[in-house]
Amino acid sequence: MKQISGSQSIVFQNAPYIVSAASVVGAKETQGPLGKLFDICAEDNLFGAQTWEEAESTMQKEACILAIGKARVRAEEIRYLYGGDLLRQGIATSMGVEALQIPMFGLYGACSTSGEALALSAMSAAAGYGKYMLAVTSSHFGSAEKEFRFPLGYASQRPLSAHWTVTGSGAFLVKAAEEPDADKAGEAEGRGNSGEGQLGETAAEPAAEPDEGDAATSQLSHVRIAGVTVGKIVDYGLKDSQNMGACMAPAAMDTIVRNFLDMGRTEEDYDRIITGDLGYVGQSILFDLVRGQGYDIRKKHLDCGMTIFDRETQDTHAGGSGCGCAAVTLASFILPKVESGEWKRVLFVPTGALMSTVSYNEGASVPGIAHGIVLEHR
Amino acid sequence: MKQISGSQSIVFQNAPYIVSAASVVGAKETQGPLGKLFDICAEDNLFGAQTWEEAESTMQKEACILAIGKARVRAEEIRYLYGGDLLRQGIATSMGVEALQIPMFGLYGACSTSGEALALSAMSAAAGYGKYMLAVTSSHFGSAEKEFRFPLGYASQRPLSAHWTVTGSGAFLVKAAEEPDADKAGEAEGRGNSGEGQLGETAAEPAAEPDEGDAATSQLSHVRIAGVTVGKIVDYGLKDSQNMGACMAPAAMDTIVRNFLDMGRTEEDYDRIITGDLGYVGQSILFDLVRGQGYDIRKKHLDCGMTIFDRETQDTHAGGSGCGCAAVTLASFILPKVESGEWKRVLFVPTGALMSTVSYNEGASVPGIAHGIVLEHR
Repeated sequence: MKQISGSQSIVFQNAPYIVSAASVVGAKETQGPLGKLFDICAEDNLFGAQTWEEAESTMQKEACILAIGKARVRAEEIRYLYGGDLLRQGIATSMGVEALQIPMFGLYGACSTSGEALALSAMSAAAGYGKYMLAVTSSHFGSAEKEFRFPLGYASQRPLSAHWTVTGSGAFLVKAAEEPDADKAGEAEGRGNSGEGQLGETAAEPAAEPDEGDAATSQLSHVRIAGVTVGKIVDYGLKDSQNMGACMAPAAMDTIVRNFLDMGRTEEDYDRIITGDLGYVGQSILFDLVRGQGYDIRKKHLDCGMTIFDRETQDTHAGGSGCGCAAVTLASFILPKVESGEWKRVLFVPTGALMSTVSYNEGASVPGIAHGIVLEHR
Repeated sequence: MKQISGSQSIVFQNAPYIVSAASVVGAKETQGPLGKLFDICAEDNLFGAQTWEEAESTMQKEACILAIGKARVRAEEIRYLYGGDLLRQGIATSMGVEALQIPMFGLYGACSTSGEALALSAMSAAAGYGKYMLAVTSSHFGSAEKEFRFPLGYASQRPLSAHWTVTGSGAFLVKAAEEPDADKAGEAEGRGNSGEGQLGETAAEPAAEPDEGDAATSQLSHVRIAGVTVGKIVDYGLKDSQNMGACMAPAAMDTIVRNFLDMGRTEEDYDRIITGDLGYVGQSILFDLVRGQGYDIRKKHLDCGMTIFDRETQDTHAGGSGCGCAAVTLASFILPKVESGEWKRVLFVPTGALMSTVSYNEGASVPGIAHGIVLEHR
């Protein structure tokens, strides 16, 4: 496999596809501007479960099953799952994906986790480690408030700089671009084989278009993960966990500018640059920071946290946030536009604030991290 | 890159090396059987910090810096860092590795995280995504008791099936096997370049031995990560978080037997099969479960949790545990034996119990996960 490789970025020569995506959301998200675009909308945020945590796990499981089903793939055909959530010890993911019995890597990158999961899925697929990879993340307003702030029953007031955690889960099925014949023979035996399958060389040949059979049965056939820019931890020393937009904006700037430098691009090369959940406060800081580096992304920028809720009517203050925010916005709103070719190239940059109640109470700062995913219509 | 590929496993055709490893531990670990083998031994478990969490971060940072230093590599030369710990939202890792400024993937796999980090490091290096990858994990007795059980000041009694969380951090520098000339040119420019570097094809040629210059400056030159077996979540429905050995043993069995099937091997093909932290209770369950599958690993088995503490004198009940337990035992005790050739092939299987205080209090079961790393002397 041949790839252009900048300092933090990978450009895949044989870029994998996102062949299907699924979004599962709660009631407030359903009432928002994207309401009609989601796959599964709950009237009850408990999703039939007894606890917020169990509800979040249910969302993850449903999102995975739906993404797999849309592509008419069986869970046994998926080589590895990359997943995570915001809860301590990632229990929403552990309990959520358990039933699928896919070999899995648990991740934590705060609200940037959907980018982390997509990056690793694409890296694994492009490397020839399997035909299908599954990326999934989730967040839940009830479980997140309990985890990070106060139980809902306290009815605590929130500052205007605070975000509203999205109740939602997004899952994405990533498919390798090429299947050499030797690989196909091995894969056809499914998970039950005993190591005889040989993955062929993933050589630097022009990537084949997906065959017609795939196009007919999959939800998506023109969205490629062309490259990734893996983020560093960026810490400007901010300590206000109720102003996560400000904490994450420097990391978003760092990853966006690094993507430009690594790939020799500017904002002109993207139809949209879409951050995860900077919100209204974080966006204005991001614009300033990026301008300080000599770029102006104002005409190209969207933020999932500002897109998913209506500012005037939904009282969500700085905007939506959470591992699920960027994931369900990608699945429902962004991918269809890339699929149709309305947007030819998008830089998707989920952003995370790295903190816990313990680190906050001990006076530590809240560093940020952001991972960049280059999505292309091809 | 060509590789044999079973259902959950990858065998690398051009297996990456572990070129250096570092271990940092606390006072109790220093007094144990491996005490003389660790790199940095603290007299004070606070490591000069104000809190247990900060102490754990300090350990991670020191382990990373030492592993990098042993291989005479600069942090800028490391392409990606894979790291994790046991604390909520992985703050020991976020705060610990922040100063290194290496693009990073945060992981959570409970006490299996060292296996997860090594697997992803090896997969990334073997795929040609960079020359060096860094894997690091940690745990701390003080921070873990606070996170999962009771603050130390409560002096709570512990059942005999409970583990003692190891205070320690292990870091591992993984190096790709090959460097085509084009790659060398790109890498030489370091992180400051702007995307001109081209990673060449990672073709299926016989792997080169590390050159003399490397052998002279690196700590290790004969330890290869020959393959990995990525674990599934295995849940036998056990709910006792004070008996994690029993919760994790089924996952260890599953991964070990899957490794045998995927790679066409039995226990005879390994000099040692080494689990992370099953302890005395988990080991006997593992033996029974593996025997039920038609294998007998009793003569080949070691457990890091049983190796790191002395059962008679150290009062650690079921044995050591934690993300740091398997990591520091690997760095200090296992790798030197593989390097010397005393052990030609080892299956290293860190095991994790997937739970949080919230899932436990809500009555959820404690599923397990285990990742297998095949280490070979070459």
